[in-house]
Amino acid sequence: MIHQDTIVALATPSGTGAIAVIRLSGKNAITLAEANFKSVSGKQLSKQATHTIHLGHIIDGEKTIDEVLVSVFKNPNSYTGDDVVEISCHGSNYIQQEIIQLFLRKGCRMATAGEFTLRAFLNGKMDLSQAEAVADLISSDNEASHQIAMQQMRGGFSSEIAKLRVELLNFASLIELELDFAEEDVEFVDRTQFKDLINRITFVLKRLIDSFAVGNVIKQGIPVAIVGEPNVGKSTLLNALLNEERAIVSDIAGTTRDTIEDEITIGGIGFRFIDTAGIRDTQDVVEGLGIKKTFEKIEQAQVVIYLFEADVISNDSEKFQNLKLEIQKIKNKYPQKPVIVLANKIDKLAKAQKEDLEITLSTVEGSHSQFLSAKNGIGVEELKNTLLSFVNTGALRNNDTIVTNSRHYDALLKAFEEINKVKEGLETGLSGDLLAIDIRQALYHFGEITGQVTNDELLGNIFANFCIGK
Amino acid sequence: MIHQDTIVALATPSGTGAIAVIRLSGKNAITLAEANFKSVSGKQLSKQATHTIHLGHIIDGEKTIDEVLVSVFKNPNSYTGDDVVEISCHGSNYIQQEIIQLFLRKGCRMATAGEFTLRAFLNGKMDLSQAEAVADLISSDNEASHQIAMQQMRGGFSSEIAKLRVELLNFASLIELELDFAEEDVEFVDRTQFKDLINRITFVLKRLIDSFAVGNVIKQGIPVAIVGEPNVGKSTLLNALLNEERAIVSDIAGTTRDTIEDEITIGGIGFRFIDTAGIRDTQDVVEGLGIKKTFEKIEQAQVVIYLFEADVISNDSEKFQNLKLEIQKIKNKYPQKPVIVLANKIDKLAKAQKEDLEITLSTVEGSHSQFLSAKNGIGVEELKNTLLSFVNTGALRNNDTIVTNSRHYDALLKAFEEINKVKEGLETGLSGDLLAIDIRQALYHFGEITGQVTNDELLGNIFANFCIGK
Repeated sequence: MIHQDTIVALATPSGTGAIAVIRLSGKNAITLAEANFKSVSGKQLSKQATHTIHLGHIIDGEKTIDEVLVSVFKNPNSYTGDDVVEISCHGSNYIQQEIIQLFLRKGCRMATAGEFTLRAFLNGKMDLSQAEAVADLISSDNEASHQIAMQQMRGGFSSEIAKLRVELLNFASLIELELDFAEEDVEFVDRTQFKDLINRITFVLKRLIDSFAVGNVIKQGIPVAIVGEPNVGKSTLLNALLNEERAIVSDIAGTTRDTIEDEITIGGIGFRFIDTAGIRDTQDVVEGLGIKKTFEKIEQAQVVIYLFEADVISNDSEKFQNLKLEIQKIKNKYPQKPVIVLANKIDKLAKAQKEDLEITLSTVEGSHSQFLSAKNGIGVEELKNTLLSFVNTGALRNNDTIVTNSRHYDALLKAFEEINKVKEGLETGLSGDLLAIDIRQALYHFGEITGQVTNDELLGNIFANFCIGK
Repeated sequence: MIHQDTIVALATPSGTGAIAVIRLSGKNAITLAEANFKSVSGKQLSKQATHTIHLGHIIDGEKTIDEVLVSVFKNPNSYTGDDVVEISCHGSNYIQQEIIQLFLRKGCRMATAGEFTLRAFLNGKMDLSQAEAVADLISSDNEASHQIAMQQMRGGFSSEIAKLRVELLNFASLIELELDFAEEDVEFVDRTQFKDLINRITFVLKRLIDSFAVGNVIKQGIPVAIVGEPNVGKSTLLNALLNEERAIVSDIAGTTRDTIEDEITIGGIGFRFIDTAGIRDTQDVVEGLGIKKTFEKIEQAQVVIYLFEADVISNDSEKFQNLKLEIQKIKNKYPQKPVIVLANKIDKLAKAQKEDLEITLSTVEGSHSQFLSAKNGIGVEELKNTLLSFVNTGALRNNDTIVTNSRHYDALLKAFEEINKVKEGLETGLSGDLLAIDIRQALYHFGEITGQVTNDELLGNIFANFCIGK
């Protein structure tokens, strides 16, 4: 299906650059481009082969807007599956706007958010989960989220679902066939084999559903609460973590962070650091509110770093008791949450002092204690390893499919529920017609993921989150 | 000359978008791309025709970085004249960085600012003034500056210079030939024809030099000082001017300006509005400093708008006398500077009041008075026409070459000086050998503009102002 109306949008980031790319897609993309393009070679665009590039000028009547390169993609061999033209122009805002305006006047329509990818889906170039992965891929900013999005875009997730779907569909057909011969009381479906399939499906679904915990965290970044008074070195810590990473090549502004609340990529995985005000015991109402907030932030976090100054604790047993108490409080409230007790500014301690502190800290129950000199970069590598050890990256390393999309998660949960009903039905000897209904429901939820089952509202919601031009 | 080393850079604006383009240029551009690209068709990039596009994946060993389109341009048919590869990838920062990093590891070098265009110049794809126009084109943000840059990039300026140069060179050769036959006292050069040429060159040079006043102002935007107390409606005025312009299509943020100091495009020409604090007479030292600043800003401006509230002046003859006095002060200091006396908020006046004010204002000497209701959009069109009337756009309309670059302006001034010497020499019957020296000097300065005469330092200075990737 080639779309009758031709849409246009800027495909590259907005702003000024060496070049910008404007994309046209639809039935008249090539003829519209041709009518406003003066090729240097004098050849007509519509007579050119697909995947070829042509130098010339975009003209608006007498006026030359820019010297450009025009790329021609003929349906179905394009991103959208329509005829597509990409105009690579000089990257000034003015030129970008002039060219888009020109094509709007000449009969193009401004693309809505995600409309190019929507067309790719509607034209069967990709399924719905692949289309969703395109947006994830563009917004992914570290190795882990990139890898998951890439796998999903390349169909890893879809093919896993599709495989289950085909097998299930086979059984569903056979069971429905049995119904047609109900009076003859034959069984086309080997119940043992069917149970076996249902067990396999249950296993895969469970793995996919469980992977969402990892996937979601990787997509959003792993939340780490930093508990500590002001001036114990929170921003120095974050900068130390940040600056160990390889320098950024392009002219992206500022790599030194001023704010504590920020995301840092460690070992290819995003960590979101959340600043808290500490949890000193207090009678003060206002401070009491602060502590309540700190606990709320700890609740959101997957890991807690309790940061303090080594030299302060080292010389003050009362302060150390206080520290112990505070960590106990955290552990009481969240026994499962990993706490890293981090002694900063150890450069200020003598060797013997450090050894003493090490022994003292080992008496703090339920926590990992570590030493750090954020200033001198000592202990930064160890801290990173500790942080990474709390992330279940097994699935990531094994290249397993990881679910990151809550829509997919919901559909998988629903499919799981239906499959469980089928399982129970098999065990209780439920009649074929009732079994068939549950199987069809499970198939429906599989179809929701890949887009075999869909509606305009769902598509609207999904693609509204895309940027215009994608 | 194909450059031995291969450079790489992001060509599209930095940030996130649907796609981004990474450009490689140099001897190994195609083979380097091929080594890290897995084509869907299985074909080798190096065996593909120029100006063709290939779908596949950028791979780093086992790892797939992205699904991309690779465009191949074979020397000399590329922007730089080298072999060029453009990789169109998904527009996430992470992917952009990973691909650039990959090629840096594989032997590419990060391009310096403007290095692609520098190569285009060195490879004879464009002359120096055309190369400079590329940067101007990218930074131009309105029709006038865009049109001038386009004309220069397409060689309009160069061809004008080149024509003069060829004619002058002919005469120079003939005069030098005369020197070889000095003893025979022949004249190969018809002195009348030569004088005629020198006159034509003088005429053209003078026109080009004069055009710089217009060109510079168009490039930088025309400075307009707004003199007026706070709350007389300065920002409403600017928003009224702005909102009359056609809506901006892309998702560029906010079209309502909060600051008074901003550039607005009117009739394709940029106007830079400069806020001032007014010039009330005062004994106060601090306020006195404010007035001094206002006058400094008026000095920079090419047009002054004196903005006041119609209803305030209309009912208060003392205030009107004050207004008259202040305008007189401006005219005394800058007699040549156009002043627009702008009565805002005329929606607050009855018809009779308005007519009275009109008569009163006509007694203010040396100014154009106009009425405005920025709120209701009344008088906005008239104000725009008045502003445009102060811009000498004749040259722009006639498609004449306009000089915008101060380097070109300098060279033209120097050439003009030398041509004047030649002229004087001709009139005083200067000997051929001395004439020849002056002609050669003029030719030298022409060559500076187009880059026939150049050096590394000059090139370094010029291209340092480009963005990386261009």
